Amino acid sequence: MEQQIDPNDVRLFSGRSNIPLAKNISEHLGIPLEETKFSKFSNDNLFVQLGASVRGRVVYIVQSLTPPVSDHLVELLMMLDIAQSAAAREVHAVIPYFSYARSDKKDAPRISITARLIADLLCTAGATHIMTMTLHSPQVHGFFSIPADPLTARMTLEQFIRQREIDPSKDVVVAPDMGRAKPAARFAAGMGLSIASADKTRVSDTEVKIGGLIGRQVRGFEHAYVYDDEIATAGSVVELSEVLIESGIQRISLICTHGLFLGPAVERIKAIPQIQEIITTDTVQRPSERRPPNLTVLSVGNVFAEAIRQNYLRRSIGELFEGMET
Amino acid sequence: MEQQIDPNDVRLFSGRSNIPLAKNISEHLGIPLEETKFSKFSNDNLFVQLGASVRGRVVYIVQSLTPPVSDHLVELLMMLDIAQSAAAREVHAVIPYFSYARSDKKDAPRISITARLIADLLCTAGATHIMTMTLHSPQVHGFFSIPADPLTARMTLEQFIRQREIDPSKDVVVAPDMGRAKPAARFAAGMGLSIASADKTRVSDTEVKIGGLIGRQVRGFEHAYVYDDEIATAGSVVELSEVLIESGIQRISLICTHGLFLGPAVERIKAIPQIQEIITTDTVQRPSERRPPNLTVLSVGNVFAEAIRQNYLRRSIGELFEGMET
Amino acid sequence: MEQQIDPNDVRLFSGRSNIPLAKNISEHLGIPLEETKFSKFSNDNLFVQLGASVRGRVVYIVQSLTPPVSDHLVELLMMLDIAQSAAAREVHAVIPYFSYARSDKKDAPRISITARLIADLLCTAGATHIMTMTLHSPQVHGFFSIPADPLTARMTLEQFIRQREIDPSKDVVVAPDMGRAKPAARFAAGMGLSIASADKTRVSDTEVKIGGLIGRQVRGFEHAYVYDDEIATAGSVVELSEVLIESGIQRISLICTHGLFLGPAVERIKAIPQIQEIITTDTVQRPSERRPPNLTVLSVGNVFAEAIRQNYLRRSIGELFEGMET
Amino acid sequence: MEQQIDPNDVRLFSGRSNIPLAKNISEHLGIPLEETKFSKFSNDNLFVQLGASVRGRVVYIVQSLTPPVSDHLVELLMMLDIAQSAAAREVHAVIPYFSYARSDKKDAPRISITARLIADLLCTAGATHIMTMTLHSPQVHGFFSIPADPLTARMTLEQFIRQREIDPSKDVVVAPDMGRAKPAARFAAGMGLSIASADKTRVSDTEVKIGGLIGRQVRGFEHAYVYDDEIATAGSVVELSEVLIESGIQRISLICTHGLFLGPAVERIKAIPQIQEIITTDTVQRPSERRPPNLTVLSVGNVFAEAIRQNYLRRSIGELFEGMET
Amino acid sequence: MEQQIDPNDVRLFSGRSNIPLAKNISEHLGIPLEETKFSKFSNDNLFVQLGASVRGRVVYIVQSLTPPVSDHLVELLMMLDIAQSAAAREVHAVIPYFSYARSDKKDAPRISITARLIADLLCTAGATHIMTMTLHSPQVHGFFSIPADPLTARMTLEQFIRQREIDPSKDVVVAPDMGRAKPAARFAAGMGLSIASADKTRVSDTEVKIGGLIGRQVRGFEHAYVYDDEIATAGSVVELSEVLIESGIQRISLICTHGLFLGPAVERIKAIPQIQEIITTDTVQRPSERRPPNLTVLSVGNVFAEAIRQNYLRRSIGELFEGMET
Amino acid sequence: MEQQIDPNDVRLFSGRSNIPLAKNISEHLGIPLEETKFSKFSNDNLFVQLGASVRGRVVYIVQSLTPPVSDHLVELLMMLDIAQSAAAREVHAVIPYFSYARSDKKDAPRISITARLIADLLCTAGATHIMTMTLHSPQVHGFFSIPADPLTARMTLEQFIRQREIDPSKDVVVAPDMGRAKPAARFAAGMGLSIASADKTRVSDTEVKIGGLIGRQVRGFEHAYVYDDEIATAGSVVELSEVLIESGIQRISLICTHGLFLGPAVERIKAIPQIQEIITTDTVQRPSERRPPNLTVLSVGNVFAEAIRQNYLRRSIGELFEGMET
Repeated sequence: MEQQIDPNDVRLFSGRSNIPLAKNISEHLGIPLEETKFSKFSNDNLFVQLGASVRGRVVYIVQSLTPPVSDHLVELLMMLDIAQSAAAREVHAVIPYFSYARSDKKDAPRISITARLIADLLCTAGATHIMTMTLHSPQVHGFFSIPADPLTARMTLEQFIRQREIDPSKDVVVAPDMGRAKPAARFAAGMGLSIASADKTRVSDTEVKIGGLIGRQVRGFEHAYVYDDEIATAGSVVELSEVLIESGIQRISLICTHGLFLGPAVERIKAIPQIQEIITTDTVQRPSERRPPNLTVLSVGNVFAEAIRQNYLRRSIGELFEGMET
Repeated sequence: MEQQIDPNDVRLFSGRSNIPLAKNISEHLGIPLEETKFSKFSNDNLFVQLGASVRGRVVYIVQSLTPPVSDHLVELLMMLDIAQSAAAREVHAVIPYFSYARSDKKDAPRISITARLIADLLCTAGATHIMTMTLHSPQVHGFFSIPADPLTARMTLEQFIRQREIDPSKDVVVAPDMGRAKPAARFAAGMGLSIASADKTRVSDTEVKIGGLIGRQVRGFEHAYVYDDEIATAGSVVELSEVLIESGIQRISLICTHGLFLGPAVERIKAIPQIQEIITTDTVQRPSERRPPNLTVLSVGNVFAEAIRQNYLRRSIGELFEGMET
Repeated sequence: MEQQIDPNDVRLFSGRSNIPLAKNISEHLGIPLEETKFSKFSNDNLFVQLGASVRGRVVYIVQSLTPPVSDHLVELLMMLDIAQSAAAREVHAVIPYFSYARSDKKDAPRISITARLIADLLCTAGATHIMTMTLHSPQVHGFFSIPADPLTARMTLEQFIRQREIDPSKDVVVAPDMGRAKPAARFAAGMGLSIASADKTRVSDTEVKIGGLIGRQVRGFEHAYVYDDEIATAGSVVELSEVLIESGIQRISLICTHGLFLGPAVERIKAIPQIQEIITTDTVQRPSERRPPNLTVLSVGNVFAEAIRQNYLRRSIGELFEGMET
Repeated sequence: MEQQIDPNDVRLFSGRSNIPLAKNISEHLGIPLEETKFSKFSNDNLFVQLGASVRGRVVYIVQSLTPPVSDHLVELLMMLDIAQSAAAREVHAVIPYFSYARSDKKDAPRISITARLIADLLCTAGATHIMTMTLHSPQVHGFFSIPADPLTARMTLEQFIRQREIDPSKDVVVAPDMGRAKPAARFAAGMGLSIASADKTRVSDTEVKIGGLIGRQVRGFEHAYVYDDEIATAGSVVELSEVLIESGIQRISLICTHGLFLGPAVERIKAIPQIQEIITTDTVQRPSERRPPNLTVLSVGNVFAEAIRQNYLRRSIGELFEGMET
Repeated sequence: MEQQIDPNDVRLFSGRSNIPLAKNISEHLGIPLEETKFSKFSNDNLFVQLGASVRGRVVYIVQSLTPPVSDHLVELLMMLDIAQSAAAREVHAVIPYFSYARSDKKDAPRISITARLIADLLCTAGATHIMTMTLHSPQVHGFFSIPADPLTARMTLEQFIRQREIDPSKDVVVAPDMGRAKPAARFAAGMGLSIASADKTRVSDTEVKIGGLIGRQVRGFEHAYVYDDEIATAGSVVELSEVLIESGIQRISLICTHGLFLGPAVERIKAIPQIQEIITTDTVQRPSERRPPNLTVLSVGNVFAEAIRQNYLRRSIGELFEGMET
Repeated sequence: MEQQIDPNDVRLFSGRSNIPLAKNISEHLGIPLEETKFSKFSNDNLFVQLGASVRGRVVYIVQSLTPPVSDHLVELLMMLDIAQSAAAREVHAVIPYFSYARSDKKDAPRISITARLIADLLCTAGATHIMTMTLHSPQVHGFFSIPADPLTARMTLEQFIRQREIDPSKDVVVAPDMGRAKPAARFAAGMGLSIASADKTRVSDTEVKIGGLIGRQVRGFEHAYVYDDEIATAGSVVELSEVLIESGIQRISLICTHGLFLGPAVERIKAIPQIQEIITTDTVQRPSERRPPNLTVLSVGNVFAEAIRQNYLRRSIGELFEGMET
């Protein structure tokens, strides 16, 4: 029999970025999603009030850093601060989409490694543990000075794709950029497919050049699984798709954990008929107008719920964990 | 002869909230306002790049926490982080309007003393010193674990008002709330006037009750100087003005350091003809449509510039400092 | 049935400032007050030894910062240090009278916001949580970087006064200073009375001037409830009482949480026959010679005991908490 | 005229890992390398004594984390501790080879992100700034909570190779692993060459499998520049070289910043005649028996010296900095 | 009946310095010694992997700082880091032999108080509590900013010696140095014997002078118990033994907690026939060739096991604790 | 020519414990002792105000922890806090007598290593560097997490005694306790004398037993230099003196750095005519009634002044430093 969380000992809250996912987690765990009051003061200051006592409790706070990112971040920092200063025993920040993970290095002078800054701010605000998913690079894990569990959506995605026929002579996995080649290679290994990697060079703000001998690599394959961590305005994947099609690829599946589909994304994707499907998860809440056709959304609510349960019951979260496989 | 700042040793930057004030400070100091690049990534993440080397330099960063507050806050945190991680010698956050100073106590369960939280976040991001102006309560000074100089606009405001005739038998200073009575009393003492204090009780989100025997106090006076730290939607001062008029006050001057005039503020003020003038400062940058008629804006750029100069030259900032007078 | 604290899991100690209150708390909780040995080495160094093992225990240490304040403070810091370095699980500092709360702002150059300093020292010494009562200003709460519960004696005081007849046309609540007007207004609202506020200006070390149109406000009332947080030498309340009497007040009740009655206080109070009663609590232990006639001392031992029990049992401390009411 | 460091204000020390490089830096800077006494107590404890007063001085300490890594690390930590506790004004750790940068993620359960741990230990020991070179991944930069300058040897390497003829139709840059593809792509872009990336999978402790469609990518090229950050036992590059040769590559140049050439490295390289040259730097001190034939060692002493000078003179270190180019 | 540790709540690990003692502790506690994988990467970086989940568990890690000290230290730091970043509830470092305790003061300029440095590094790495034994000086306890329990082997040693006949007119306890006189005096008091103390002056690296009127003190006694905390190369005790023999001592027993017997120690001891026995403990693991003849090794595994049990069961560790007796 | 401190860059303040010494230091340095206002609020809270601007300055604050120790400690903490929060560049605590150095170990359960606690409190309050003199044990140096310079009075004392004739056959140095034997041995070595050490056992609060074969050691000598760090009530030295006299000593010189002479000290010393002189320093300010006859007070003002000058001028403080000699 499944061991259960003591509902009297745990409090689950959610910021306003992705309440459906928080509810999903709540249902999987069998514990209520407590109310939280949000409003803005007349001077635009945020006001947040947690709706249930947290004294001595284990508190989980769910918040994705989706647009408006700054508001969602400040909201999360305030919720952490409330929990810790109201004497919670443990304060877990559950951040399904940690947008600032992309700002993970200093590739220009006098910029901020913002992922590290945010990690430190979360600690200052009172977080004692972090759960997140599919970080842009696995090193971001090391930015946290508190225990962190970067979970993975890969099992969820793989499980879905395995339901269809896989043919290593026709299907190939493609990484849109050398910097994302490693996780794509891991996905390819999991599916038993070859891995090709493009090399994206940013020519200007609006133009990227796709290189890296990608044409040679996909020649002869028919179907490309373009595998990335997130799709925002879809500029890169569309650019890449065009190169792939020129190189003989006939069908393209876009796979990403964090599907934001902002700005021109839906239009851009629609314009390329060879993109026959897009597979993503619910780490990001999307209004209906931001959903491209042929979009499949897989829920990772069960992954987070399971990780929370294992964490609470002091059990290893084993395979839920990103990068665990050798 | 005035001793000057070494322009080669100092770097002045500004966030996007109040560039005119930053320029004003820059001109008073005779040092350039360095460029900063701001943009948003496709996923709504902020991108900031300081436009001049800060290695070993004394860096001043100007940012008011005006709407959109969260964006301006994150922008400031990133600028501080960039300065400190690029090896600046000192990192001074100059925050003319520190909006969250109003969230300075826990007057409901499970809310955040956000002013303390923000103070801690500023330190985490790398600030080594804070300059700000007219905090909602003087105790907020103690929220900072680094040296802080809360400057005052009172001298600027008093100097302006002293140009006219003051008559203690006709003029009276009014605090809109018992919680703001102390600084109003200090202003009254400075002007040689009596001080009356209303007692504001919040009945509901949209309704306040004005009490505190205010009618008895202002009876016989003709002209009320309503003195507050900030005016946002102007709900309280308008409510108070009506009570004052009922009690015989014929003319009202609204005085505040931080004049935001958001939402219905301009309309509300216009609706009361007895409000014959509003006096505020430029800690907040207002688009023209948010300026009530009869608005006088006094610049505090010289106050900040003078404080920065004194700080840099290791001299006491004496009377610039809020609350110094006994 | 009342849920109880596990006496084997909790250790209650007391410094030497207010042992009767600590015993009172101990009795309300039904757990023993453990012994502590205090002495001074021949060089005046303090020596403290806790009389029961604290390893893995939840430790509560009671100490009021009454005169000699420095000795009582160092005593408390040492007790906290002993508890944390002897591996206590939680270390709660229960400070019924936190005298330094009055040093909460920098109203002169080069002084210390000592309340913040003490808050930091308590953390350094090992406190993981603070309980205190009726802070001089609610913002002092934000000086603590650990969870803090500033309790209130207001319910205790109100309950006592409600036993008598209240007449809003004759009784009025008076704050002795604009800076203390807000809590007095809250008390007035609770009793259904009007609130008047004086404006105290310090003329010299020994002389204060009472202003703020106080005469106008109390005209017509008969009985004033002068409401303050603490009375030390009683200079201000005596000065205020004289103004009130001149303005027609016939009877005065002095109400304060922390009644120290130091130096000339008893004599001063005796000299004004209209002061017909003084109501205070036992946050401060007073020798009999420091008790004015007509003094009523209400115990807050049950408030602290109840807060400790709720805290230990991980329940909200709801209405015990200062400033909770809207 | 070149502005110089004040020799009286700066102290340069070196641990025992790479004294020739430290001397080289010293000569470039024109300041002496101070003596340091090292010994071991009879119980194997390290003893270190800095040979010149550091009080109020800017101290630079050079130490590479070469074998024996633990001894060199503890030596460095002690030197930092001595400098900071002897009241140095700034303590700069100059770590040409930061071996633990490779332990930058948690790719198995219950292992350590040791690069972050070491970064924290360096801070604890007293470092106020870090200089290092060619980190295994650029994200490691974000592990430091103090300013860090990860310098690059790329300009040094590129300058050397540019002396020869480059032919984009014959020469190709090869990354030995998807995880290292990004910096190799940057090098390729700098040289105007195409970039191919292998995908290394570790089959067992002694066996790796090279995949990633590498054969397709290099087909038709003659000369491969295998570009990696470090070569230790040379297992991967040798395995890769064999695949390249099978795919038609006739000549191989191995390029790496950190050439350790430990254990079987020299023998393995000798066994493949197509490896016609190895180009590395002096971040690592190698005894003569650990030098493969055809080894070219380029000194980066001038890069570190220049960065130290720029840092001391508070000037941007611009292009010396890794990853600065877009 | 003995209360037991919950084996499901506790995890016991050991570094590689003294696995027999860790096993001994494991057996006394009745909980398994979990596996840990150790290896070195090709570049000499350490690799450590804990073999059992620690999430939410109480973790004890046993490691003596025996040669190679730096490797054993880094190993320990990594194990602590793994435990804390994998979300262990408590992380206890059990360090039977803390070699760096000898570096406890600054008796030359620009050296390191390495014991304090190591104490800080242990905290940074994640230790929440320290257990150790017979520190070189009791003040080292104060170097730890976390709870620490310096246990003592004295009871173990005294119990063994009490089995024989003690004659205060013939037996005398001798401290080899004034700096070690206090613990020897405590041992002497326990045995009912007189205490003599030599004064060791280091003449050069290889020569010590024994003074302090030691001859006068031992005159007339027959049997000296030379009592020290550790014996490494045995230089001092051999030097002292010669002086004692010259002063008429006929039989010598060497007693120490930490018997390392490094380098020439065994030969030196063998050369003095009057040294008829050496008594030490198993805080240090010795290969057979480093064991002098007549060596008695007493196990302190039960002392550590008992302290761990008491700690876990939240009971005082009373007499196990060093320096507890008055 | 002597290089001087820039008086405009330095601020020297003193607490109330030892103003004559602070003035002495001020005169040696040639910089003014700035004024500080001290008073107590009516509730016994301390009030402190520094009398000169410290912004950007190097601040030295002199305070001995003499009785009343707690008041002097809190006074010092407040002065440090004022300096750091008023943006001083460096804050140096100069503590000639650090009384709590005696509480340096845990020799009973559940007591405080108060010296470490105080060291941490000084850091929290804002000290960036500590200067002190003759710590009870040299390990206390390691309690400070900031640079500390424990100076020595030994040169001052030795210089005074060397003016007389020293006869190694008649004069002997005696340590009153095994725990103080090491520094006495160092003094003896400096004077070319033998060292004897008593072993003090505390029988009860008022009775000590002197052992350690002291009689045997001093037999034949005539004149004992009893050397200790501090004399408070003189119990131990008087007890020891009696044993020495019984053992044939005819003349006794008491030497100590910190001469408090509290309570019965003067009477006790007077009662033993063989105590022919007491030599101490001015680290402690004594009223005339606390001065025993035959007291010689040597000033260490020059030692502190010299250390401050060397520190400010960034020069080694070499021989001023305690424990520097081998």
